[in-house]
Amino acid sequence: MAANDKLKETTVSTEPVFQGRVISLQIDTVKLPDGTTATREIVKHPGAVAVLAVHEGRLLLVDQYRQAMGRCELEIPAGKLEPGEDPAEAAVRELQEETGYRCDKLTHLHSFYTSPGFADEIIHLYLAEQLSPGEMSPDVDEFLEVQEVTLEEALGLIAEGRIADAKTIMAVYIWQLKDARAQAEARP
Amino acid sequence: MAANDKLKETTVSTEPVFQGRVISLQIDTVKLPDGTTATREIVKHPGAVAVLAVHEGRLLLVDQYRQAMGRCELEIPAGKLEPGEDPAEAAVRELQEETGYRCDKLTHLHSFYTSPGFADEIIHLYLAEQLSPGEMSPDVDEFLEVQEVTLEEALGLIAEGRIADAKTIMAVYIWQLKDARAQAEARP
Repeated sequence: MAANDKLKETTVSTEPVFQGRVISLQIDTVKLPDGTTATREIVKHPGAVAVLAVHEGRLLLVDQYRQAMGRCELEIPAGKLEPGEDPAEAAVRELQEETGYRCDKLTHLHSFYTSPGFADEIIHLYLAEQLSPGEMSPDVDEFLEVQEVTLEEALGLIAEGRIADAKTIMAVYIWQLKDARAQAEARP
Repeated sequence: MAANDKLKETTVSTEPVFQGRVISLQIDTVKLPDGTTATREIVKHPGAVAVLAVHEGRLLLVDQYRQAMGRCELEIPAGKLEPGEDPAEAAVRELQEETGYRCDKLTHLHSFYTSPGFADEIIHLYLAEQLSPGEMSPDVDEFLEVQEVTLEEALGLIAEGRIADAKTIMAVYIWQLKDARAQAEARP
């Protein structure tokens, strides 16, 4: 199914509003399919990686204070791409920095947009396998705590709202589907 | 598992940067758990709703041009909350506006943050059932096309990257898990 040309909007002009350390903001004026114009507030983001890592039947989660929500969030290990960094290398790096774990096998699962209505942030999600524990090395302004939970516990944390992050909920469901497939294959 | 107080950051000051039609942007200075300070670039968003709606075995998707990515995205019906609007009412409204479908049964599935690192956007995801087709009524600056796809087609669209939106991928996996459960229950 090809992208749909008759829905296409064309950029008329871009007004830069803010250039930050992580994100930038611009207002685009676009020409709509009917010839009228509209404005779009757009956040530019460098992109990020996230890692679904299960060690001995337990999902690796990172607990971290999130200023945007004013609360701690339990999330799968994740972090921004450095300029020019290969996403797979970033995934290995973030997993090690945030949890201490090294992985010998990495598989790309999905690349997805988090907020297509106002931001271009893309997250590359990887499955990390063949894990071995080691030392964490978080960034200087990152304060983290690692938790390792079973599938049942992860589903409970989603149900009670303690896991409330889109990429983490998605990762738990991917894990649950994998688990169900593995059980179905093991059935006599 | 309670939120983790020793990871807490405290807001020292907030500098408003931009107030737009949809989002606003501010820079918060925060005191970290070790007493040092850091800045956080924070996007404020009014929150949104999204709807998992399956009619006669087919998922309702909306194709829409997304300026942030410069491409069309196939997404489940979704939209911003109006000020003071009840999320469940917004879900019914967005489903009708974007697809024409009315629903007689609505179940809350999850409320999740899309980009906890830089934005407070929360999406309330609902399951809409008992659907009946009707007339679309999109907003004046919305140009949409509805597509209805089977589970197999949806999984194919994810695999080929045509569905590349976090909430939509999550919704497809929720549907797949429900489908697997229904099949397991039907098994003799």
